[in-house]
Amino acid sequence: MNKLTAIVCFLTFLPLSGGARAQEAARSGPKAPKVILIIGDGMDQHQITIARDYLAGYQGRLTLDTLPVRSNVQIQTVAEENPSLPEYVADSANTATAMATGIVTSAGRIGTTAGADRDAPTIMEIAAAAGFGTGIVVTSSVTDATPASFVAHVSYRLCEGPRSMLPDPANPNALSGDCPGDLKANGGKGSIAEQIAASRIDIVLGGGERYFAQVAEGEKGKTVRELAVANGFRVIDKREELAGLPRDGKVLGLFAPSTMPVQWRGAGGAQAQRVRRDENGQVVLPEPFVCEPEPAFEPMPTLTAMASAALKHLGDARPFVLMIESSSIDKQSHARRPCGQIGELKQLDETLKLVLEYAAAHPETLVLVTADHSQAAQLVPERSWLGPNAASPGHFARILTPEGAVMGVNYATNDSNLQEDHTGADVPLFAYGAAANEVPAAVRQTDIFGIMLRHLGLAAPSASQ
Amino acid sequence: MNKLTAIVCFLTFLPLSGGARAQEAARSGPKAPKVILIIGDGMDQHQITIARDYLAGYQGRLTLDTLPVRSNVQIQTVAEENPSLPEYVADSANTATAMATGIVTSAGRIGTTAGADRDAPTIMEIAAAAGFGTGIVVTSSVTDATPASFVAHVSYRLCEGPRSMLPDPANPNALSGDCPGDLKANGGKGSIAEQIAASRIDIVLGGGERYFAQVAEGEKGKTVRELAVANGFRVIDKREELAGLPRDGKVLGLFAPSTMPVQWRGAGGAQAQRVRRDENGQVVLPEPFVCEPEPAFEPMPTLTAMASAALKHLGDARPFVLMIESSSIDKQSHARRPCGQIGELKQLDETLKLVLEYAAAHPETLVLVTADHSQAAQLVPERSWLGPNAASPGHFARILTPEGAVMGVNYATNDSNLQEDHTGADVPLFAYGAAANEVPAAVRQTDIFGIMLRHLGLAAPSASQ
Repeated sequence: MNKLTAIVCFLTFLPLSGGARAQEAARSGPKAPKVILIIGDGMDQHQITIARDYLAGYQGRLTLDTLPVRSNVQIQTVAEENPSLPEYVADSANTATAMATGIVTSAGRIGTTAGADRDAPTIMEIAAAAGFGTGIVVTSSVTDATPASFVAHVSYRLCEGPRSMLPDPANPNALSGDCPGDLKANGGKGSIAEQIAASRIDIVLGGGERYFAQVAEGEKGKTVRELAVANGFRVIDKREELAGLPRDGKVLGLFAPSTMPVQWRGAGGAQAQRVRRDENGQVVLPEPFVCEPEPAFEPMPTLTAMASAALKHLGDARPFVLMIESSSIDKQSHARRPCGQIGELKQLDETLKLVLEYAAAHPETLVLVTADHSQAAQLVPERSWLGPNAASPGHFARILTPEGAVMGVNYATNDSNLQEDHTGADVPLFAYGAAANEVPAAVRQTDIFGIMLRHLGLAAPSASQ
Repeated sequence: MNKLTAIVCFLTFLPLSGGARAQEAARSGPKAPKVILIIGDGMDQHQITIARDYLAGYQGRLTLDTLPVRSNVQIQTVAEENPSLPEYVADSANTATAMATGIVTSAGRIGTTAGADRDAPTIMEIAAAAGFGTGIVVTSSVTDATPASFVAHVSYRLCEGPRSMLPDPANPNALSGDCPGDLKANGGKGSIAEQIAASRIDIVLGGGERYFAQVAEGEKGKTVRELAVANGFRVIDKREELAGLPRDGKVLGLFAPSTMPVQWRGAGGAQAQRVRRDENGQVVLPEPFVCEPEPAFEPMPTLTAMASAALKHLGDARPFVLMIESSSIDKQSHARRPCGQIGELKQLDETLKLVLEYAAAHPETLVLVTADHSQAAQLVPERSWLGPNAASPGHFARILTPEGAVMGVNYATNDSNLQEDHTGADVPLFAYGAAANEVPAAVRQTDIFGIMLRHLGLAAPSASQ
């Protein structure tokens, strides 16, 4: 973002903050409105059905299935080079930006507009400016696209830490960003980690410690973590520390170097594989497998434990907005790991149960559950109906479910050995709470921003963005 | 069905008919409750998003998107050999049976239970027995799985006409059924076409003329069509005849030998194809194409025209239940023809507009729109995000949309040259009308039977089925 734009942003905030503070005074106390937005990254209807069939059975119910209001979300993405032209498949950066800021942008962008690269104020910034509580709880790095879009503004999602702001000529294959305009030296706000460290968010929990261990730009050798501490964050990195958090001050929890390990894996590490053919060209289907705990998850806090700590920290006297994401439903679908997906959807569903208990005790709470975009995994017949010599042309898994049947999961958006692509279908939106009935049956993703703002009694900044 | 079961079925109907007739007397007149169930065969969220992006644009709205209530349908299928064991992917026979009768059955079954092969009374039979109006309007053969399940009872969906009741030893590859127990000679009710000809349904419109041209079993050389006429059906086969239908008597419209031609195709017949690689192994993506009218559709009535004729024929004085299906969304997805799918979803959406106008003028009408199961087609990036050397391992199409962007559609559930498999994701349910708010946010497919019955004020037969 350039300086002129920064000034425009600042000015547009001023009138809001005053008005919102007055509102806050009127709304504080036990009736203070609260928004809890739960995102399942990549959690489209295939992922939900696959998880339900495994976790609850084909006639069973997830906690998700008990929510009283169901809506549908139309995803909006535009081309970076020509923002009047749509793209039909989104990524987690532009979709989280749509929910967090109400703008439509291009894939890869964090809180910034396509082409013009202007910052768009996020719901967390607007709420914090009004004196409301704010929180982010994820299982990815806290600098990953979804959480980043609620708190930061960079032109590309991979600009997660000071060392990943520019391509590394010595290591051209390393994942890194391309955000020269976001360097502080160029009038920008720095990397996503630096922007989180400088933010007013009350509590941020997830992975991503390695980005905070990097030396911040232009801060005389200080790490980003040291900047966060200087800005009032208590930084923790062990799940045991979640229990004893002080109510005052800000909290930054970093429980893994990057993405947190997931809860489940296929037995012995099994995942989808290419279907083999024997010497006669006959299909040899992969053996069915069950899901089992992922050993690397053992020291991690669950998503539910992190959400519980965040709710305690935010308290119930102030209005707040809390975003909770089960981040790795998406990442495990990319990696063709059905048990990973199912386990992370289980984490979301268990966290939803906790959140619904909170909302039942705090009826001023609006709970929204949605996905940011669709994913590759498809629930398919465990043996093709086309006969014994037909099978998935991509990667395929057969899962033995607790009710004793076999479920086929197909990954075939591309033929690379690396990972799957996203898909472009609409995603579900579930709602609970007093304001839930005001959620229309069909929304565009940017409408979620407005729904949250309205429930909080806040106004969107002027359209200068 | 054996004779003993037939007697049980008959007995369970008796008490209902008396009570229901009394209800009908109380409910006839302009306030008579009406149910219009619109099914998009295979119309899951991918198919809807693909169609919307083409027909209305990425920010546009289909008529579907204007419906005030949205719910989600959990599909239920069991194994024929062990009905206590689920299968996770359904077909149109068992799913239509779930909606039409409220029972869970195995793939391929029409109005009969898995394993035991008992007949389950359909909503059309229950409504007709109560003196209510009944109608079926489809773009498939009227003997195809979805319409059949609302009016007939056979053990296998391919038993569509008298000549397809048993495998043909002289032609073992021909599509035919395996329904010895359904032969009239064995105490059954005969083929689906024969059961339609013998039914009380007021109006049945679609394709399937060839099954009615066959000689009926044990009827001294009469064709099924002749039996239908003898049972009071006026049989028509030209769209012009839809305009002049008498209000009295039953109507059977058969506008094509089997499935009706679809409205759209890819330009010049283009459809999804395997992605080619050049001599250097580099991906050569298929050229984008637009959709165009399918010439074979020209003499056909539209789904909207058929629905309009059915509504006029049923009148508004009596309660009625009308099932309307856009049948070939599914068939075109099987065949990897994205423009075919889009055009048939367009037919559904235009028919929905007509139905909503009817329901607005007749507020005693409950409109439900749903799909029976999910399909293979996925909306994917038009170029893989994994780079220029990654592409669909299955069949792939690039569609040039009216808003000037390119949409990728992927078909990759199996590698056969024949067709795609179904998929197993939950499907949407939309509702409109006075009773729409009573539709819960999450239902099982069998619940749709109960929702329709309740709105009509009818009771389900006793559980002897």
